Amino acid sequence: MTTRMIVLNGGSSSGKSGIARCLQAVLPQPWLAVGVDTLVEAMPATLRTTGAGIEFAPDGAVRVGPEFDALQAAWMTGVAAMVRAGAPTIVDDVFLGGAASQRRWQQVLAGLDVLWVGVRCDSAVAAGRELARGDRVTGMAASQAAVVHQGVSYDLEVDTTHTESLTCARTIAARLG
Amino acid sequence: MTTRMIVLNGGSSSGKSGIARCLQAVLPQPWLAVGVDTLVEAMPATLRTTGAGIEFAPDGAVRVGPEFDALQAAWMTGVAAMVRAGAPTIVDDVFLGGAASQRRWQQVLAGLDVLWVGVRCDSAVAAGRELARGDRVTGMAASQAAVVHQGVSYDLEVDTTHTESLTCARTIAARLG
Amino acid sequence: MTTRMIVLNGGSSSGKSGIARCLQAVLPQPWLAVGVDTLVEAMPATLRTTGAGIEFAPDGAVRVGPEFDALQAAWMTGVAAMVRAGAPTIVDDVFLGGAASQRRWQQVLAGLDVLWVGVRCDSAVAAGRELARGDRVTGMAASQAAVVHQGVSYDLEVDTTHTESLTCARTIAARLG
Amino acid sequence: MTTRMIVLNGGSSSGKSGIARCLQAVLPQPWLAVGVDTLVEAMPATLRTTGAGIEFAPDGAVRVGPEFDALQAAWMTGVAAMVRAGAPTIVDDVFLGGAASQRRWQQVLAGLDVLWVGVRCDSAVAAGRELARGDRVTGMAASQAAVVHQGVSYDLEVDTTHTESLTCARTIAARLG
Repeated sequence: MTTRMIVLNGGSSSGKSGIARCLQAVLPQPWLAVGVDTLVEAMPATLRTTGAGIEFAPDGAVRVGPEFDALQAAWMTGVAAMVRAGAPTIVDDVFLGGAASQRRWQQVLAGLDVLWVGVRCDSAVAAGRELARGDRVTGMAASQAAVVHQGVSYDLEVDTTHTESLTCARTIAARLG
Repeated sequence: MTTRMIVLNGGSSSGKSGIARCLQAVLPQPWLAVGVDTLVEAMPATLRTTGAGIEFAPDGAVRVGPEFDALQAAWMTGVAAMVRAGAPTIVDDVFLGGAASQRRWQQVLAGLDVLWVGVRCDSAVAAGRELARGDRVTGMAASQAAVVHQGVSYDLEVDTTHTESLTCARTIAARLG
Repeated sequence: MTTRMIVLNGGSSSGKSGIARCLQAVLPQPWLAVGVDTLVEAMPATLRTTGAGIEFAPDGAVRVGPEFDALQAAWMTGVAAMVRAGAPTIVDDVFLGGAASQRRWQQVLAGLDVLWVGVRCDSAVAAGRELARGDRVTGMAASQAAVVHQGVSYDLEVDTTHTESLTCARTIAARLG
Repeated sequence: MTTRMIVLNGGSSSGKSGIARCLQAVLPQPWLAVGVDTLVEAMPATLRTTGAGIEFAPDGAVRVGPEFDALQAAWMTGVAAMVRAGAPTIVDDVFLGGAASQRRWQQVLAGLDVLWVGVRCDSAVAAGRELARGDRVTGMAASQAAVVHQGVSYDLEVDTTHTESLTCARTIAARLG
């Protein structure tokens, strides 16, 4: 069975989107790339700032409410259907719930050949990159760096602390066979 | 049956995204909003500029190649699955193929209660708004204004030439009952 | 003396940036367009959220602190110098201080031939457009619509409530002679 | 004399903007950050794609025409005036003309205490980062990596190939004394 789905999981500013774009450039076929940012952007503006939706606290903590949660579940089902319908897809996500987040994906992806990739980055380095980007709530990188990997199993892990996105992408692409 | 899907079809710079955001604000429940721009953004960078993908000619013409087409079909299936899984969704699209584009959506949306909305805008006015936005290829608005509506059937049509996005959104919301 | 500077003053979501881009398109010579958004973007991230800088309150109120104020004064001097050095420039600004804001500009622009343009928009219409844009704090449009014009004198006023940006731009361009 | 101006020169995707944002975060006083991107954004849309303005060729080459050149000269004068008026400023630029570009800045900055910083990045690494960003014309990073430093004299050079933006920023900040 050919792998048609790659899930990149890592904390904010760990370099997932950059790896996704590099993967799109190095993979021979066209792959789509979507992520939790795509979902947040599709939400009503009010859900981006209230307790029912997703809240970015000034200290970098992220709280997800019940309405966000329900829409996210439907969105995940949609992504899985898109892959089954023939679009090879890279998803970048932040498993705020660690192993529980992975199980949610595993349920909707049942029967698909998925490559699970952990994207690590030293917490202090990720915090510095967050500062350099300038468009994220300060503190997210540090607070998510470790927790998103708790109990998650991977086929492959990459670490962007000392390795470029393109190199990580090539390592991942090589594993697709 | 409750309507859980609204399809907004109109030319570039006709005001679809603004109406979608206003709909999200006025509808009592949270709705997701996605569109062809979401899809283009998910594509590999190379597909955004080559004949196999989507090409924006200097005169505003848009040409869609076979690989874009295949990924778009899978994406549409994914959107339909997302709606079926419980996420009420507004799609804004540009039916470059007119009636044929609508048929593609009708096939993937079979069995769902969909509200089809035509978003009209006087061609010269849309061209002026394209200039005011400053982030689109000049000429798209004018070249798409009429052609995207050819042979398409709607439940409702709105016209942004003299009507604000919010007013259009309220008219559409009222039709959901 | 040829006019080399156009100042557009109006509340948030009144349509200033759109008019500025249309002016750049219709004016025969190349003009630069800068605005208070350019300045905010040049500020350190911390000044964008603290009392010393600029604060966007959840109700749409905008508070400007002493450090923002000092940098803004220097920025205005820089814009004036750029115009004197030969770059025709459109500035879009929000005169939170009404007449006092205009006097600050008049001081740095002394000796230059400036076209002062008031950009009006009905408060409710501007609030609707703010919703349609989806990228602004809700409430800014309504709270600024009237106050920014208090005591300000104009060479020309345009109103985007029922008039397109491009038409407003043509009216302004015609006044340059 | 206190240094109130830092000029960062380096090729596309060498990491200048990230360093500028980190400098704003680590410097005790508020500094403004502007750059050639700020200028390009202020230009009329037509000047961004024609021979009279700035052209980004498909191979990553950048050609600057006479009208862009004239506006840039005035913009540089404006930046210098802004610094003299009291706003400490970080400029990030791409010296397409090498030493000649530096001389243009030296003329407008005469009498100011400027810290000249070269931002180096291995050409292949910069090209990889360009791919990871996904919003730049491919080829710019490689074609500019070396040429922008030809004949330029610096107070300090940093290299982002193996050093994080934040670390580079701290090195630069330490030199301000």
